[in-house]
Amino acid sequence: MNKSSAKQWRGIFPPMVTPLRDRDTLDVAGVERLIEHILAGGVQGLFILGSTGEAPSLSYRLRRELIERTCRQVAGRAPVLVGITDTAFVESINLARVAATAGAQALVLAAPYYFPAGQPELLEYLQHIAPELPLPLFLYNMPANTKLAFEPVTVRRAMEVPGIVGLKDSSGNMIYFHQLISLLPPPDWTLLIGPEELLAEAVLVGGHGGVCGGANICPKLYVDLYEAAAARKMESVATLHQQVIRLASRIYQVGHHGSSVIKGIKCALACLGICDDFMAEPFHRFRSEQRAEVQGHLEALGITRFVG
Amino acid sequence: MNKSSAKQWRGIFPPMVTPLRDRDTLDVAGVERLIEHILAGGVQGLFILGSTGEAPSLSYRLRRELIERTCRQVAGRAPVLVGITDTAFVESINLARVAATAGAQALVLAAPYYFPAGQPELLEYLQHIAPELPLPLFLYNMPANTKLAFEPVTVRRAMEVPGIVGLKDSSGNMIYFHQLISLLPPPDWTLLIGPEELLAEAVLVGGHGGVCGGANICPKLYVDLYEAAAARKMESVATLHQQVIRLASRIYQVGHHGSSVIKGIKCALACLGICDDFMAEPFHRFRSEQRAEVQGHLEALGITRFVG
Amino acid sequence: MNKSSAKQWRGIFPPMVTPLRDRDTLDVAGVERLIEHILAGGVQGLFILGSTGEAPSLSYRLRRELIERTCRQVAGRAPVLVGITDTAFVESINLARVAATAGAQALVLAAPYYFPAGQPELLEYLQHIAPELPLPLFLYNMPANTKLAFEPVTVRRAMEVPGIVGLKDSSGNMIYFHQLISLLPPPDWTLLIGPEELLAEAVLVGGHGGVCGGANICPKLYVDLYEAAAARKMESVATLHQQVIRLASRIYQVGHHGSSVIKGIKCALACLGICDDFMAEPFHRFRSEQRAEVQGHLEALGITRFVG
Amino acid sequence: MNKSSAKQWRGIFPPMVTPLRDRDTLDVAGVERLIEHILAGGVQGLFILGSTGEAPSLSYRLRRELIERTCRQVAGRAPVLVGITDTAFVESINLARVAATAGAQALVLAAPYYFPAGQPELLEYLQHIAPELPLPLFLYNMPANTKLAFEPVTVRRAMEVPGIVGLKDSSGNMIYFHQLISLLPPPDWTLLIGPEELLAEAVLVGGHGGVCGGANICPKLYVDLYEAAAARKMESVATLHQQVIRLASRIYQVGHHGSSVIKGIKCALACLGICDDFMAEPFHRFRSEQRAEVQGHLEALGITRFVG
Repeated sequence: MNKSSAKQWRGIFPPMVTPLRDRDTLDVAGVERLIEHILAGGVQGLFILGSTGEAPSLSYRLRRELIERTCRQVAGRAPVLVGITDTAFVESINLARVAATAGAQALVLAAPYYFPAGQPELLEYLQHIAPELPLPLFLYNMPANTKLAFEPVTVRRAMEVPGIVGLKDSSGNMIYFHQLISLLPPPDWTLLIGPEELLAEAVLVGGHGGVCGGANICPKLYVDLYEAAAARKMESVATLHQQVIRLASRIYQVGHHGSSVIKGIKCALACLGICDDFMAEPFHRFRSEQRAEVQGHLEALGITRFVG
Repeated sequence: MNKSSAKQWRGIFPPMVTPLRDRDTLDVAGVERLIEHILAGGVQGLFILGSTGEAPSLSYRLRRELIERTCRQVAGRAPVLVGITDTAFVESINLARVAATAGAQALVLAAPYYFPAGQPELLEYLQHIAPELPLPLFLYNMPANTKLAFEPVTVRRAMEVPGIVGLKDSSGNMIYFHQLISLLPPPDWTLLIGPEELLAEAVLVGGHGGVCGGANICPKLYVDLYEAAAARKMESVATLHQQVIRLASRIYQVGHHGSSVIKGIKCALACLGICDDFMAEPFHRFRSEQRAEVQGHLEALGITRFVG
Repeated sequence: MNKSSAKQWRGIFPPMVTPLRDRDTLDVAGVERLIEHILAGGVQGLFILGSTGEAPSLSYRLRRELIERTCRQVAGRAPVLVGITDTAFVESINLARVAATAGAQALVLAAPYYFPAGQPELLEYLQHIAPELPLPLFLYNMPANTKLAFEPVTVRRAMEVPGIVGLKDSSGNMIYFHQLISLLPPPDWTLLIGPEELLAEAVLVGGHGGVCGGANICPKLYVDLYEAAAARKMESVATLHQQVIRLASRIYQVGHHGSSVIKGIKCALACLGICDDFMAEPFHRFRSEQRAEVQGHLEALGITRFVG
Repeated sequence: MNKSSAKQWRGIFPPMVTPLRDRDTLDVAGVERLIEHILAGGVQGLFILGSTGEAPSLSYRLRRELIERTCRQVAGRAPVLVGITDTAFVESINLARVAATAGAQALVLAAPYYFPAGQPELLEYLQHIAPELPLPLFLYNMPANTKLAFEPVTVRRAMEVPGIVGLKDSSGNMIYFHQLISLLPPPDWTLLIGPEELLAEAVLVGGHGGVCGGANICPKLYVDLYEAAAARKMESVATLHQQVIRLASRIYQVGHHGSSVIKGIKCALACLGICDDFMAEPFHRFRSEQRAEVQGHLEALGITRFVG
């Protein structure tokens, strides 16, 4: 395995949405435009097939196609991280191999999410899967969707498993994030935060970057906030954090249900002319009134076509 | 679509465990012995690839192999129901087609289980998927694993969707089950209960049968209890219900974690010489002390090799 | 302590609502009419200051007044059970003494419900409080409100604590109820069910009676169902169970929020001219449209003034 | 009502533990020593009868005694805030009057915590109770114990209710805290954070102070951290935050169950010779091995008798 260097994993890694034409067809031109849009924002890397990418709702065929197209389009300009979360161990490995062959740099894995496993079972699962993976692995803590958190006691043990190089925390629980930092992870380990509302404080207290959905829309805003926080420029942090909160509290709160965040991001990208906003079942794109609301918010926020 | 008749769906439909040699290899001889063992108990049908069958933990290749081998082995002696639950709409359809081609009689579908959807989204999902399925569909209410119940208001609407013919309730919530009955389902609809502890009362209050894990071990016991309850033979019901509770309260409470039920069933089947007890990740078979405990319980319960 | 005999605790013990004029004033005439209405239905006893009685929302002064007035009005015609659930140990004891002095026959205690305690802490709590109580004690399993269930392992140990004579289960989880029965409680122990939807099956599988909110409205219906189930008269059980489900699925589903059951019962009693439907904060009586709905349901169900 | 000025509510308000001799007896000398210990740390005020103060587990008589003794001992040197959270509206008012008469400056109220109310019911509750209170009121968001959060939509409306002057958030959910800040509360409103692990970031992003349990032990540490964060002295923030995390991750993780935090604080205070560590049911003080562990942690942290 090509051991990653920690420095590679500092900054913003947008969790890319998956542009779709229909339930099983990629919006290929949209994928290409979206990748260019995100890279132009100066991000450190790109994360595909996470929750924001609707990975669990996509067929394996489409997931493989997305991996290959993304790696080809990025063409080494930034590392590509690929989500391989699955309830079936064997399918996670299959996806990991596709990712390695296509030229991705790392893998991202949440807990298996159908059966409620115990922490010792979760640790054993990690110890079994890591040696079979061809690329460095990030854990992905996402208990709202998986029902199963990587508890600190499990993360501490996972830090000793060769090949596991970091963790992305999307729990929204900053006490947990502080606990991880206080475990004193090895220097080549990386701790990333999921929710963009928490990016500023996560970096201020010692985190290494963020995997923020809004960076699909305005990648540069998140890169700027990360850099301001890393440099402890507190006035810039305050201003940029405020902008992030404003975006999140408007765009993500159109509509109902837990699906509003992804719907809002896809809808905004469609408004900006970047890609289609079709969503895989069980979700559906916003209807026209909600789209008009999102359009209004974008204008109020000063976000216009192809803003970085 | 070959419309099913309601009468076909009255009785016991054991949720078959999936005998494995290792993570991606069926225990083929075990599958055959297990099917014969279960059919010998006089069951009404066989349900494969449910939770007890560890379906979400199995590769698609293995799931397809199991569907084909099971249909071939059963050879029309009883209807085969196939679980097609998946987070990806397209993969559910793929499995459904394999099942129809192999000769299965019905499909079983829990809610998509990664993203927390709302009830209107869940209903739309059902309305979209049912027309694309080549066989009659049972809903499978399993909120402990899916985080999403089929609420009564959604079930009422689902009763009007062509092709949806019944529901299996594994919530353990009998108030919910009574609510479904009070919706007055169409006469060709079927309501089955999951947890075997509730089989007696579910049938006494108007349910049509059970999908009980313990019927892997002692199929006849569950068939007898179903028939006694359907005939309102209350003394037999009391005796047989007592036996079911005794089995469940012993075999399923060896070990810890939510995985104890499936582990206990597989371990008991291994003790009886029927099939291997290998489990797919994230679970693992019982160790030797726990296996000795299960063996002891089987003896105390008078369950010996190849008891029907 | 006057040891209770088990026989005393077989049947229906309605959890009486607390008729109020305003936030801190009893509807005294309503209390008297309601007690007579309930006793006329042939119930086995009366349970005051439970959840249906809004006990936690009432001042201690009013709770003491209700205890005294109820005991005086009942005047030995049936045993009175008094809820003493409280987050403060000392206040539970204070209420218990008032109950004993007033002539009540037993006490009912749910888990302390602010801090989430562990099962060993809960057991110790029971071991400490039981010796200080002047009357026999029923446990009250109500995890939806207390966040803390009496797990079977704790109930088994509680069966050995002198003075604890039974348990009322309002969890709605019949698997749990079967587990309690399979613990083989001592012959002088009593297992009662809370939710009326489960009364029939609870008695059929070995429970001893019910504490059903609807028995405020139609006490005789619940007494009849209990007796039919105890005598295994399955046709009567089916008919009466159906009536109970119909009442519950109509009256309790007017309005929203978890408070709909108590609101529905109080509103029905007001429609029947029995008592005021004022509710203690944080709840409020139904508004006129909802009251009209309840009135309509009562008429459809054939429940008119002073039906037993 | 004496309108409070916002400036009064900036800084650290330790949630004082309640020193007890036994279940219903204050450790009076301990109360006095603890108050002096805390005030010596330069705190902005003192909060009694919160969760850390075990208020729901104490008799009303003892709560009244604590209010009176605390106000007498503090004698105007700092504002005293008094928790009046209760399931019974009338008892909350009773406590509020005792607090006002004793000379307290403000009240603190969590949601009523037995019945699961809806947000509209919660808002109405606030609208009803605020006018009856003789002192300014802080809301206390504590969903882990109350099951009911003050959702942002409710907080926004509560900001318009005269007499409600702020909110203490103990949810641990920083996304929620950011949402409250983005509601743009009136300038005389105060937002305080509960969990000490989040004090630094809460103040950095615009919060006004903290109600931190550890300030019972080391009040000056929390005052220093607050001041460093308010002044954006990022190096001091990093050092002091680290010390807070170290204290919390050691002292609060001795023992099991949710009760470990309060037990750890009381035990530490007993080790320091400040007050008794008796706990009200359903909890119990640490046993000797756990006490030795806490003692060891205090020494490792350099916390010795009467450190401010």
